[in-house]
Amino acid sequence: MKTVLTVLMSCMLSAGAIAAPANDPATLGQIRDAAMKSDYAYERLADMTDLIGPRLSGSPGAAAAVEQVAAAMRKLGATVTLQPVKVPHWVRGAETAELVDYAGRPAGLSQRVVLTALGGSGATPAAGLTAPVIVVRDFDELKARAAEVKGAIVLFDVKFDQEMADRGLAGPAYGNGSRYRTLGPKIASQMGAAGFLVRSVGGADFRIAHTGATALSEADRIPAAAVTAEDSMLIARLSKRGPVKMHLTLTPQNLPDADSFNVIADLPGTDKADEIVVVSGHLDSWDLATGANDDGTGVAGAMGVLQTLKALNLKPRRTIRMIAWMNEENGTRGGAAYHAANKDSILKQFAAMESDSGGGRPFGILASVEAKAEKHFAPVMAALQPIGAGVFTRRDHVGAADLALLEKDGVPLFQPQVDTSTYFHYHHTPADTLDKVDPENLRRHVAVMSTLSWYLANMEQPLGRAPVVEK
Amino acid sequence: MKTVLTVLMSCMLSAGAIAAPANDPATLGQIRDAAMKSDYAYERLADMTDLIGPRLSGSPGAAAAVEQVAAAMRKLGATVTLQPVKVPHWVRGAETAELVDYAGRPAGLSQRVVLTALGGSGATPAAGLTAPVIVVRDFDELKARAAEVKGAIVLFDVKFDQEMADRGLAGPAYGNGSRYRTLGPKIASQMGAAGFLVRSVGGADFRIAHTGATALSEADRIPAAAVTAEDSMLIARLSKRGPVKMHLTLTPQNLPDADSFNVIADLPGTDKADEIVVVSGHLDSWDLATGANDDGTGVAGAMGVLQTLKALNLKPRRTIRMIAWMNEENGTRGGAAYHAANKDSILKQFAAMESDSGGGRPFGILASVEAKAEKHFAPVMAALQPIGAGVFTRRDHVGAADLALLEKDGVPLFQPQVDTSTYFHYHHTPADTLDKVDPENLRRHVAVMSTLSWYLANMEQPLGRAPVVEK
Repeated sequence: MKTVLTVLMSCMLSAGAIAAPANDPATLGQIRDAAMKSDYAYERLADMTDLIGPRLSGSPGAAAAVEQVAAAMRKLGATVTLQPVKVPHWVRGAETAELVDYAGRPAGLSQRVVLTALGGSGATPAAGLTAPVIVVRDFDELKARAAEVKGAIVLFDVKFDQEMADRGLAGPAYGNGSRYRTLGPKIASQMGAAGFLVRSVGGADFRIAHTGATALSEADRIPAAAVTAEDSMLIARLSKRGPVKMHLTLTPQNLPDADSFNVIADLPGTDKADEIVVVSGHLDSWDLATGANDDGTGVAGAMGVLQTLKALNLKPRRTIRMIAWMNEENGTRGGAAYHAANKDSILKQFAAMESDSGGGRPFGILASVEAKAEKHFAPVMAALQPIGAGVFTRRDHVGAADLALLEKDGVPLFQPQVDTSTYFHYHHTPADTLDKVDPENLRRHVAVMSTLSWYLANMEQPLGRAPVVEK
Repeated sequence: MKTVLTVLMSCMLSAGAIAAPANDPATLGQIRDAAMKSDYAYERLADMTDLIGPRLSGSPGAAAAVEQVAAAMRKLGATVTLQPVKVPHWVRGAETAELVDYAGRPAGLSQRVVLTALGGSGATPAAGLTAPVIVVRDFDELKARAAEVKGAIVLFDVKFDQEMADRGLAGPAYGNGSRYRTLGPKIASQMGAAGFLVRSVGGADFRIAHTGATALSEADRIPAAAVTAEDSMLIARLSKRGPVKMHLTLTPQNLPDADSFNVIADLPGTDKADEIVVVSGHLDSWDLATGANDDGTGVAGAMGVLQTLKALNLKPRRTIRMIAWMNEENGTRGGAAYHAANKDSILKQFAAMESDSGGGRPFGILASVEAKAEKHFAPVMAALQPIGAGVFTRRDHVGAADLALLEKDGVPLFQPQVDTSTYFHYHHTPADTLDKVDPENLRRHVAVMSTLSWYLANMEQPLGRAPVVEK
C-alpha cells in the first residue's frame, strides 16, 4: 500500500518534470527511485513462473506466457503486437540410463545414471540401446580415438571451470564447456557414434543435469544427453578399471515447427517516435524448470521498464519497445524474425538492450558503442551509482543472442552487468525457480534498465553504430 | 609405492613396540601416522560406491555389499562372521506429481512437482490419485485444521535451519525437520489424510528431494513423499492464491522381510579377548545414491581401523570388532540383532564406536562416558591433536542409531566429531556420491578411529558405564 502511494506521489510530483530536460539528473534519479520501490516486476515474474511454469518453444506453457505478457502490457496501456515466429518443437520423452557392465560389477547389478536429453536430441528405440561408452576430454582426443567411436556412446567429461566463473568470467567458462554440448553431438554422429553424452555444463554438484541446445539436424540426429557431473566422474572412474557398457533410453520427439510469437509492447515516442529503443528478455525457457533466471528476470525487467515510466507518466522522445523474445534457447527464431522485419530500416533501431544473464545483483552496464560515445553515458551511470550499478563497460561486441543480427547490422547493444557467480549452478536445470531470485536485486535490475532506456530514448548526442560492423 | 614402503618400514620399526606399554605416545602416534598415509579406506569406499552403488536393506546392492566387505576383511586376515538380520524390504516405484488446479492456472496447464517417496510409503492407485493439498507448518496447525485433512494431501512446509547447522548444530537442525517426516505420515493418516508430503529436510536448494524413514506401519500406510524445498515453497505460494489440487502417483512396494546380515570382523585380543571394542558404520544406504557419506565413510573408516593395526602388526589386548551394520536407515534391525545376541553378557561390550555423520573433517571425539573417566583420554587426544582432532566432548548420551540399545544397557559410546555443515545438503539425496568425500579427511577419520580403538582396547583404567543408564 505504501509502495502504491509512494508511486502515486512520485507521479504527481513529476508532473512538472516532463517538460524539464529529459535526461536531467532529477528525472533519472526519479526513475531509479520509482523502480526501487516497485514490486511490479517481481509480481510479473511470479505470475510467469508460478502460474505457468516451463515455457519451451512450441509448448503450451510458451503459448500461455505469450498471452500473459501481452495481457499485462495491454493493461499498462502499451501498444501490443504479436510478431509471428515459427519455432522448433522438441518434446522431452523418457530418459533413463544404466551402466550394465563394467570391471568389478557384482553379478546382476547395474548402476543408474542421472541424465537429461539435450534439445534436438534424437530418440533411441523405445526399449533403449546398449553400447560401450568411450570417455574423452576434447575434440582432439575424440579424433584420435575415431576407430572406437563407431557404434559407441561418446562422453565428453569436461569439468566446468567454476573458479573462472568466480573471477567474473562466467560467460567464457560456460562457452568453454558448452561448445562440447553444442557441437559434440553433430561431430560424434558424423563419426558414427550411437549416442552422445556431455558432462553437465554448470558449477554446482548436486547431481542435477543441465540441458541445453545442440547443433543436431535431421541429417545427423542421434540420442544426446547431459549427464550430471557426478555420473560423468563415475563413468570416467569406471572406465579406468575397464570397458563400460551403458543401456540408454531417450525418447524425445522432434515435431514439425510450431506457431508462436514475439510479444512487442511499445511506449510510443513523441517527436522521434519512429526511432526505436528495444528493451528485452526472452520469454521461452528450457522445459526442466520455470526459467526464473533464464530468462524470467529479463522479461520481467523489461516489463518493469514500461511500468516504471508509465507510473511516472514520463513520455520518451523515441519509442521504447519492450520485447519478450520467443525461442532464444533452441533456435533464436524470434530474434531472426524481428531482424528480418526491420533490416530495411535498420537505422531506425537506435539501440537495443537484452537482459539474459539472470537476476544476480547488477553492478553496471555493458555496451557495444563506439569509443567516442562512451562519455555520453556519464549522467546515467551517475544516477545508477547510488544503487551500486555505476560501472560502464564498453566492448566492441556484446553478443546477446536475440540481438546478434541487429548488432551485426550496426545497432548498438546494451546489457545490464550482473553478478553471475552462481548463475551456472542453476542454468538449464530443474532448479532455476523463483526462489533463486532476490526481489531487491530484481528492483535494482529494473532501475538499471529503466534509467538506461529512458536515457537512450531521449539522448541528444549521436550514439553512432556498434563497432562490430566497423571491423 | 612410497605408501607401501612407509607402512612396511613402520611395521619393522614397530616390532619392538608391541611389547612396550600399549598406550604409550609412540604407538598412538605410529597408528595415527600409518592411517594418514594409507589409501585403504578410500579404496574400499570407492569399491562400495562405484562398483555396487545404492545399498538399501533387502536390495541386491545390500547383498553385494555384505559379500564385498566380508571378502575384504577376510583378505586382511580378520575373523569374519555374518550375523543374520531380517530386514524390511521396501522398493521404490514410479513417483510423479502434478499440480492440476490452482488459482490463476492457464487452461490446460499443470505444473510438475519434484518429489521422492519416503521409506515405508504406501502406494497410490497405479493411475494416481487427485486430492486437495493443505499446507501446514507444525503439528498444532495440523490439528487445528483437522476438518480439512480428511481426503486431502497434507504438506508440511518446514524450512531446514541451515543457520543452525552452520553453527555446528546440524544434528538438532535435522531433528527439528525430520520429526515431521518421521511422525507426520502416521498422524496425518490417522486423521484421514489421503497422502502426506514433507518439505525435504536438508540445507541446499538444488531442487533435489531428500528421502528418509517414516513411522508408517501396515495399519496406517498412506502414500508419503518428500518434495523439494522449491516445490514446497511453490505449493505454499500457490495456496496463498487459492485452493491447490494435486495428482499424485507413488507406486512403491512393501515386500515381506528379507534375509540380510551384519558383517562382523574381529581382530582378536590377547589377554582380554572376551572384552569387545566395537568400531562400526552402517552398510545399508538409501536407494537414491551410492551412500558415500551416509554411511560409506563410516564403514570404510571402521575397515581402515583393522587394516591400520594389521599393517603395523599390532595386537590389542581386547578384541577390536569391526561391524558393518545392516538396516540403520529404515529399521535398525542390525543394531537390534547384535544387542539381542549380546545382552546377556553386556559387560563384555567394553566400548562401542559408530561413525555416521559423514566424512567431513574430524575435529575430535564424542563420548558417553562417566565424567570421572574423561581424564583417561588425555593420551589419545594428545595423539590426535597434530591432525586437528584433539577435541574430547563428553555427553551423557551419544545416540548413534545402531548402538542405542547397547548404550541403554550401559555400554559407553564413542563417535568421531566431524564438520557436518554441508552434510545435510546431500543427505538422503541422489547426490551423496564418492566425489563428495575428501580423501584426506577420510584418512583423518581412520586416524581418529584407529587411535581411539587401539587405546580403548588396551586401556588399564576402568571405563565405567554409559551415564545414560544412571538417570
